[in-house]
Order: sequence, then C-alpha cells, then structure tokens
Amino acid sequence: MRVTQLGEFGLIERIKAKISNDASVRKGIGDDCAVLAYNKDKYLLFTCDTILEGVDFKSREDPYLVGRKAIAVSLSDIAACGGLPRHCLVSLGMPRNTSVKYLDRLLAGMLDLARKYSLNIVGGDVSRAKEVIIDVSMLGQVEKKRLVLRSQARLGDIIFVSNTLGGSIKGKHLRFTPRIKEARFLTQKFKVNSMIDISDGLAQDLSHILKESQAGAFVYAGLIPLDKQARNLEDALFMGEDFELLFTLARKDAKKLISMRQNVFCPIGEIVDKKFKLRIVDKKGRPRTLRIKGFRHF
Amino acid sequence: MRVTQLGEFGLIERIKAKISNDASVRKGIGDDCAVLAYNKDKYLLFTCDTILEGVDFKSREDPYLVGRKAIAVSLSDIAACGGLPRHCLVSLGMPRNTSVKYLDRLLAGMLDLARKYSLNIVGGDVSRAKEVIIDVSMLGQVEKKRLVLRSQARLGDIIFVSNTLGGSIKGKHLRFTPRIKEARFLTQKFKVNSMIDISDGLAQDLSHILKESQAGAFVYAGLIPLDKQARNLEDALFMGEDFELLFTLARKDAKKLISMRQNVFCPIGEIVDKKFKLRIVDKKGRPRTLRIKGFRHF
Repeated sequence: MRVTQLGEFGLIERIKAKISNDASVRKGIGDDCAVLAYNKDKYLLFTCDTILEGVDFKSREDPYLVGRKAIAVSLSDIAACGGLPRHCLVSLGMPRNTSVKYLDRLLAGMLDLARKYSLNIVGGDVSRAKEVIIDVSMLGQVEKKRLVLRSQARLGDIIFVSNTLGGSIKGKHLRFTPRIKEARFLTQKFKVNSMIDISDGLAQDLSHILKESQAGAFVYAGLIPLDKQARNLEDALFMGEDFELLFTLARKDAKKLISMRQNVFCPIGEIVDKKFKLRIVDKKGRPRTLRIKGFRHF
Repeated sequence: MRVTQLGEFGLIERIKAKISNDASVRKGIGDDCAVLAYNKDKYLLFTCDTILEGVDFKSREDPYLVGRKAIAVSLSDIAACGGLPRHCLVSLGMPRNTSVKYLDRLLAGMLDLARKYSLNIVGGDVSRAKEVIIDVSMLGQVEKKRLVLRSQARLGDIIFVSNTLGGSIKGKHLRFTPRIKEARFLTQKFKVNSMIDISDGLAQDLSHILKESQAGAFVYAGLIPLDKQARNLEDALFMGEDFELLFTLARKDAKKLISMRQNVFCPIGEIVDKKFKLRIVDKKGRPRTLRIKGFRHF
C-alpha cells in the first residue's frame, strides 16, 4: 500500500495514533499549533510549515514573495490559536546553482515580515536540495484565557470569516496578511469558541472544526464574501491558501461583533447538530451536503 | 554569483549579518541551539536539522534508522548546549509512491528514540516531495548555570571528545547515541567552558569553537581515539557525523575528570593563543597547521 492511498489526512491520523505525550502537552497533533505548558498565565505555541517549489510556489515567482510566504504561513497558524509570534528557525534547502541575488531577495522577504510582527529569526539550517524548500518552525505565546482551539465550537455558534475568500490563485497566497492583529482583537473582546486558518479551502478547514468539535454546520452561499479575484463560489469553498481566519462565536458575541461594524468579519453560517454534517444553503434556501475537496499533498 | 561560491559557512554568515533580534534571544545563529529567555532559572533551547535522501542517507537505507537519525541529530544539538529535550515537530516530505510500510518503519525509528529521551512529538507537516526529506525542530530546556556555548573556551583549557571518532561512514552516522546523558554528567560535575557536537568532522567543529572563542588549539594526533571502523586519522579529523561531544575544561577540572576514569572521555589537546590557529602535533612532536576540510552543502 502507498501513502497516496491513505491520503494526506489518513496519513496524519496514522501518525497521530502512534504517538503518546506527557502532561505538559496541552494539545498535540490536530490543531494549528501544538500547545505546551509554559508558565502560570501562558502557553507556548509551536508550529511548522514547509513550502516547496513547484507545489506552493512557482520557480519563476519573485523570491521576495516566496520568503515572505514561508514566514507568513506559520504566523497564520499562531494567529489561529489566538497568540503572538516570538521566535522562528528557518531550514532552507536549495540547488547549488542558486544565485546569491535569489537568496538575498528570499531573505529580504522573510526579514521584512519578521520585523513587522516582532518575530526573531534565531537560527536554522541550510542544505543542498534539488528544488527550493523552506521549512519554518515558529514559537509563539498565548495567554491561557485567550487560547483558541478547533474543538470548542458549540451548537448555535455563528461562523465567521475574517475577509474575502477565493482569491488565492491570482496571487493572494503570496501576498496575504497573516491575521495576527484581527485574532488578537477577537480574543481580547470575545470568547472565541473555535478558530482555524483557511489553508486548504473553506469547506475542508470548516470540516476540521466540525470533526474536532463533534458538530455540523449550515453555510449560506449568499453570505460568503467573494474576493474580487474569485471566479466563482467554488474558488471560495475549495481553493486553498486564503489564509483568512474561520471562527465561531456564541450568538450573543456574534451580535456584538456585527454591531461593531468591523466590516472585515463576515458571518457565513451557523453550527448545528453533528447529524447534519456540513451543508451549504443556496440563495433559494435549498441545502445540500458539501463534498469536501481541497488541496491535498497525498 | 552562486551560493556555492559563498560556501556553506559564508552563506550562514551572510544570513547572520542581516538579522537583528530582541533581548529575549540570549544566543541566535552561530551555536548548536538558539538560546531563548524562559524563566528565572532556565533557558529554552531551540534547534532544527534537515536530513535528506541522497545526502544524509541512502535510498536503500533501513527507514527505521533514517527516522532514528532525524531525531538523533537534534538531540545531539540539545546535548551540546548541556540541555534536556522536551518537544519536537516533524516535517516530512516524501514522494507519492512511498509505501505505508516505509512510513511505518520511519515512524517507529523516531518514536523509539523519542520515548528513550522523554521527548514529545507534538506535531508537524507532511508534503509531497521528489525525495524523502525530514526536518525536525526541537525544543529543550537548560538550567542557566548549565548552559554551554561554543564561545567560552579559555587559554589553557584541555580539549576532550566523548568517544571514538572516524566511524561514521561505516554506519555510525545512523546508529550513534546522542550524548545527552554524558553532557548532563559533565555540566553537573564541572564548569564546561565550551562544547559542540561533531557533525562536520573534528577539525571543522573545533574550528567553530576556536572562532567563537577567539582562540587557537594544539591537537595531539596520538591522543585522538580512533573508531575501530576508521580507516585512518583523516577519517577522524575530517569525516562528518560522529556526533560525539567536543568540549573544553579548565586544567583543574580536566584533571578531576581524568582521575574519575570515565574512560569514554578522551583528552586530545589544549586551547592556546589565537595566533597558533589550529595545529595538529604528530607522534614525533611536529606541529602542522590543519587545513579544514569537512562535509559542506555548498
């Protein structure tokens, strides 16, 4: 049997099933970050992401944007847990004939974003590889009270996204803003019940929340905010790499957020009983069960 | 200009020169681990290492040993700073046609070693890649008093290695014991002035200590403990991946360690003035300046 037959998520489940951790691990595999004991008031957040030439960016892409993206995807994971970034390591693989100019642009993209988010680049690793591959591992911190996981969505919660969806293929995946500021605003003002960043498409990432929270959802097609670059609703539902926040709030908090007229946050649906699974309701009020599609490595 | 013209260490220097960090970073790029503020008594250690098919292991190698090595190289970095490992993330890239059996063996190698060192595997990342590539990022802790860097070797220090050298090509690079226990013994009993793990060959790794400590060294060829598998002295001096500890102790501590008859620790030379650079003294007492060779990615 080949790993493709397990599929990406089957593969992760297989790994998860073999692992057992000690009590200092508040949350291991299965969320945007690992959550680790730190001190009386805070947890450490620990996450890593790999971006790969030919899969996550094209060879001809501006290396500045590639470097920027390598850092941004992990910042987005820290945001999804409600935290602030602190330190990162960068593992950089590249072919021997890579130009120093390419390297410098790549670094500039990383450093500019790191500076913007008060993130320290504290070390790493360089290796010779057949293609450019960048793995960033990042440490963040979050106040215990402000930690948000995927697993606490409650019946009746309103589902929100932090901005428009479906623009990734036209370049947003290289230029997106990691939603640290927005997540901090939310966790300061509200009890955010669940949150994830949309890296694999709205449908797939919402299904992660539903699975971890043992819940179902109705999503209203007419409410999904489409990016100007999106070609259709499918782009918003299934295209990965929007890197917007997807989160749920109890009804009372949802009303309060909407009344604040922070227009970036759009309500798109609600959490319902698990038996309904994930349903999309079209503009005429007709629900259909959504078949999950989205980018998968395997 | 190409990155090969900078060379691996030139490349790292170029990256280092562009980076500035805040005061919570006790030590950034340029040691075995990054050293980060943690609490009153301890530092966090943060390190990552990539191993790559065709460079760090052969395609036909037992995947159990490959998984084991992926974890062991970072454990060795934690040991070199005097710390204990706590948590790690694993980024795993592999071709689509990788067999589930291969994956399971790889995981078994990781998990067995993790268990042995009370290390939690708390998350990671899977991606499709052209060859097997594993990046492990690891967090450890060290008591402030027991932290050892590369930069504090002192004139007159005795240089030690933790065991025999030169056996890596015959398989030791896949089966080595990360010297956590030995490093903890040393930092408990002595003031270890400087330490590094030998990943790039004795000559190259000693030159890192000399550079960071602004010092020179005499190494006595007759004292270097050769592995049974080593073909000659060159294997011990220049072959990477012994993963033994290389450390220096003040003369008084060195005498005490030798008198304890912990036979694994072998004195091989002494720290001298910087002007002498790195010299090897042959069995007839003739010194020669050592030209550094060792594995380099670029």
